[in-house]
Amino acid sequence: MHGLRTEGLSINLATVRQQWTLRQAVEACAKLGIRAVDPWRDQVAATGLSESARIIKDHGMRVTGYCRGGMFPAPDAAGRQAAIDDNRHAIDEAATLGADCLVLVVGGLPKGSRSIEDARKTVADGIAAILPQARAARIPLAIEPLHPMYAADRACVNTLGQALDLCDQLGNGVGVAIDVYHVWWDPELADQIARASSRILAHHICDWLVPTRDLLLDRGMMGDGVIDLRAIRRMIEAAGFAGPQEVEIFSAEDWWTRPGEEVLRTCIDRFNSVC
Amino acid sequence: MHGLRTEGLSINLATVRQQWTLRQAVEACAKLGIRAVDPWRDQVAATGLSESARIIKDHGMRVTGYCRGGMFPAPDAAGRQAAIDDNRHAIDEAATLGADCLVLVVGGLPKGSRSIEDARKTVADGIAAILPQARAARIPLAIEPLHPMYAADRACVNTLGQALDLCDQLGNGVGVAIDVYHVWWDPELADQIARASSRILAHHICDWLVPTRDLLLDRGMMGDGVIDLRAIRRMIEAAGFAGPQEVEIFSAEDWWTRPGEEVLRTCIDRFNSVC
Repeated sequence: MHGLRTEGLSINLATVRQQWTLRQAVEACAKLGIRAVDPWRDQVAATGLSESARIIKDHGMRVTGYCRGGMFPAPDAAGRQAAIDDNRHAIDEAATLGADCLVLVVGGLPKGSRSIEDARKTVADGIAAILPQARAARIPLAIEPLHPMYAADRACVNTLGQALDLCDQLGNGVGVAIDVYHVWWDPELADQIARASSRILAHHICDWLVPTRDLLLDRGMMGDGVIDLRAIRRMIEAAGFAGPQEVEIFSAEDWWTRPGEEVLRTCIDRFNSVC
Repeated sequence: MHGLRTEGLSINLATVRQQWTLRQAVEACAKLGIRAVDPWRDQVAATGLSESARIIKDHGMRVTGYCRGGMFPAPDAAGRQAAIDDNRHAIDEAATLGADCLVLVVGGLPKGSRSIEDARKTVADGIAAILPQARAARIPLAIEPLHPMYAADRACVNTLGQALDLCDQLGNGVGVAIDVYHVWWDPELADQIARASSRILAHHICDWLVPTRDLLLDRGMMGDGVIDLRAIRRMIEAAGFAGPQEVEIFSAEDWWTRPGEEVLRTCIDRFNSVC
């Protein structure tokens, strides 16, 4: 092995999605002593749900989240209902996998709309619609506020404060996933993390590169950017979250092009040195 | 002419920076009935300050802002002092040009820093340092909150609420420039615009394209994106701002490649139809 700490580290499997299948990724994590993962729905679908659950269980992996539900806004009622139905499947899958939570990337503006307020209302309605099933399945819904640069096309929930307002409105069974990439810039970050308290369901890490060359696929490895990861970790731990830090890196031209084992070893190394 | 309304329209000269010198841009605006512009410092420097002032005066142009001061954070005290000195020159230039305000893009993290809190403190200190001169010159300082995707490298003031907190702290002579591109996503937008009230010094318009292909140079023409420009204009006017809407579009692969007159005519057309 490598002599470095892996307790408290989780790998979001998007980080190695170009290199490995779910099985290959889980086996590689296990080999390096990593004991937690967060798979994506397409990865689980490609492997098969029950087979994915078996692989994860056989390797003693904690599932720190399941990515992802959400995407509630749609141009018409049929589309909104289809999104709700799809989220119900996602809850079932998360339960089968034994996930800590279902991560919600809530969705942006439907095509042709310029009303972010309408999209936000659709999101609240959509989460309310699936919440009874999520509670019954004991799968907490983790609203992930996404960086404002994704407000139009991925998520109209863009600050932790806004996500917590939604939690307040929706009640038990809903919390937040805090990804440093999305929230590091927020002048209210410290206050809102403290406010989040027991509603923190996930803690995602990576880094913000300068320059950032692509809005979606140019996330950095921890330590290569400007985010004060330790400061944010301290806030999150002080708020009461004791779960793993989950590495989630979309990196079309860098980390996705490297051998998977190099990526994982770098994650472990940086987790120990800068997180 | 074109029979369309141009009263209340201003052109930020960055919008045609690849096509024209300051003189050419001002002459083209005047020819189309546009009576307000906002020049950039490099454009003024290229033309000469007194010559720029003369061109603007000869064409009866209102100067809705001068772009830009700011960029206060630096790795060391000498760099911070140099930034303050440079801002003092910018105030003098703005006064010579008769500008309504000096727009401040406050700056991001100094190289090697991961503390956005430190950068924010440097910004507050920097503005405080130049404020007496700005007051004496009767040049209001317009803090422009920039989209959070610029927090690292351009501006660590990223919401209107944060900018107004700074205004509260600094006192008279400081206000805000509201650019729809930077703030359209903000869940607190309506409340903060109302709060801004008489501190609104400028109203910049363009649009957010889906997809956005570049973090800096892919702004859209009004109407080509998802921003509800009319809704934001109504908020800003209800807050008491009666100045022109100023078109500011950085568009390396589209509008900067078109003939300047086509750009201006499109600005006028969209100003009449969607703003």
